[in-house]
Amino acid sequence: MHDRFLRACRREPVDVTPVWFMRQAGRYMPEYRALRARYSMLELCRTPELAVQVTLQPVRSIAVDAAILFADILLPLEPMGAPFDFAKGEGPVIFEPVRSVEAVERLRVFEPEEGLGYVLETLRLLRGELEGRCPLIGFAGAPFTLASYLIEGGKSSHFEKTKLFMYSEPAAWHALLEKLSEVTRRYLRAQITAGAQAVQLFDSWVGQLSVDDYRTYVQPHVKGVLEDVERTGVPVIHFGTGTATLLESMRDAGGTVIGVDWREPLSAAWKRIGHDRAVQGNFDPCALFAPWPTVESRAKAILDDVAGRPGHVFNLGHGILPTTPVDTVKRLADFVHSYAGQREPSEP
Amino acid sequence: MHDRFLRACRREPVDVTPVWFMRQAGRYMPEYRALRARYSMLELCRTPELAVQVTLQPVRSIAVDAAILFADILLPLEPMGAPFDFAKGEGPVIFEPVRSVEAVERLRVFEPEEGLGYVLETLRLLRGELEGRCPLIGFAGAPFTLASYLIEGGKSSHFEKTKLFMYSEPAAWHALLEKLSEVTRRYLRAQITAGAQAVQLFDSWVGQLSVDDYRTYVQPHVKGVLEDVERTGVPVIHFGTGTATLLESMRDAGGTVIGVDWREPLSAAWKRIGHDRAVQGNFDPCALFAPWPTVESRAKAILDDVAGRPGHVFNLGHGILPTTPVDTVKRLADFVHSYAGQREPSEP
Repeated sequence: MHDRFLRACRREPVDVTPVWFMRQAGRYMPEYRALRARYSMLELCRTPELAVQVTLQPVRSIAVDAAILFADILLPLEPMGAPFDFAKGEGPVIFEPVRSVEAVERLRVFEPEEGLGYVLETLRLLRGELEGRCPLIGFAGAPFTLASYLIEGGKSSHFEKTKLFMYSEPAAWHALLEKLSEVTRRYLRAQITAGAQAVQLFDSWVGQLSVDDYRTYVQPHVKGVLEDVERTGVPVIHFGTGTATLLESMRDAGGTVIGVDWREPLSAAWKRIGHDRAVQGNFDPCALFAPWPTVESRAKAILDDVAGRPGHVFNLGHGILPTTPVDTVKRLADFVHSYAGQREPSEP
Repeated sequence: MHDRFLRACRREPVDVTPVWFMRQAGRYMPEYRALRARYSMLELCRTPELAVQVTLQPVRSIAVDAAILFADILLPLEPMGAPFDFAKGEGPVIFEPVRSVEAVERLRVFEPEEGLGYVLETLRLLRGELEGRCPLIGFAGAPFTLASYLIEGGKSSHFEKTKLFMYSEPAAWHALLEKLSEVTRRYLRAQITAGAQAVQLFDSWVGQLSVDDYRTYVQPHVKGVLEDVERTGVPVIHFGTGTATLLESMRDAGGTVIGVDWREPLSAAWKRIGHDRAVQGNFDPCALFAPWPTVESRAKAILDDVAGRPGHVFNLGHGILPTTPVDTVKRLADFVHSYAGQREPSEP
């Protein structure tokens, strides 16, 4: 198995910069759309044989250095007692949003093998399928991001219901985050036991918060999760978007690797994070729609920007968008591998 | 007329910190909803007598230190040849999105008195109504933000069509931004001639761009607009959201006052912007849903954070949300005025 992804997470020298793409398995791939024509999103997630197929689709056709479990960050909500579904074109809908102390109290902390056995089975099957190819990444949603879906009842522009709850019911907020943290902690540990060789914690929407609010309402919970999961020894990627003002606080919360979006140069972000952590990023997913010479020059700029320092995992700053041209994704993975800029680490 | 708002824009000492709220005229006010039950959004904008009424609603019931013209940043699109409407609950819909060189060429640069005479008439009427009360702010959308609506055809989550056009057709992109800049420049100048005593340039969505993209694709255009409008001598507020990585570049583009959102402490943002500019912000509009003691302590924290330095206009980091409690907005304006923290400037 080539292990350059895991080596980069640990800031060890690598032959070429490893690359994978958030949402590398998804709607931009015709193979995926063919399956989705026959199965719902939740059916794909809940059927290990299908989730394995979807996970492997990009591994077969794109030169990625890691496979990432096909699943959804919201899956733990159902065994917690908050079922949901994906409304056509509208994103997730949580049937009974959580907006009271009582609703928080009703949420259950569950054993992953009972509540999400199908995800763990998918991981076990995947390790068998992948052996000798590339490492397998598991993932979970972070407590704030999960709480925001639970409270808003779906996706949101301004997160006003989430913040209303956070400011108005701080004790219930912390109780909610504590439950979500315990669920997430157990879930990530179970994924690692089932075969995940790295895990990513998605705090996708945390960039909506001020630094003070992050430190007061979120950081202690995330820190508990990350510290526990890092104790297993597998690399943990701590990811968010719009986090330019939060990077230092996210680093303080933990993570072997910190995800960085495209809004600032990767080297500037890395300096703020500190060179004792690895970084992942930071190609703008919208730039995958550009003509190839633009894609190449932008990828080159990122690789040059951090050249010579081990600990960079090339990725996007957020997930691949559904209308992205597959060929550009393939060429980009190949380009990252072929580009010599980072081949000879000079500052280990 | 009390002029503490204009004095703060010019970094002159003030008796108390001036305050106004983005979208202070709007759906959270029952008086506004009553009018909207009878007229569409565009009817309100296009009928000077109605737009005057809406503009004055918050001035009558909330202790704001400035009135802001009731209008919409998209109004110039119609006289440019790109009509639109507001779809119920969905935001604006541009009937024929601009996605080709030819479509850019077809857009017209128009004379504000011809294309947007009703806005200028609203401003003239307002100056008569407001004399002796508070200053009047005009506004316009910035070229990037207008271009994003034109290209996406409405609001967007990821701005992928905008970026696709920017990266794929750079010459047409710059031609589009040049036209939008010329329209915006003339429109703001005409607003000032019609009576606006300050203007705000809304680059609401520019925070989606990386620093490099901002400098390459946006900054030169905005700079041209701001430099020209600042020559009139009226204060110009340069506003965006999610701009933590862009503040220095936005300052370089221009603006007497730089708008700051809630994501970082105002004093930290001000330091990066430089103390030779005034700042506006940075209360999280979602925090208006919090219980009063929380609202007060958060407002106090902002006022304390920049106490003693003239040049702070208290405002939100983005517009008031429709379900915001009016009473909280009223109390917040009163609190800003009553709070003594900034009364005695020590570092002029």
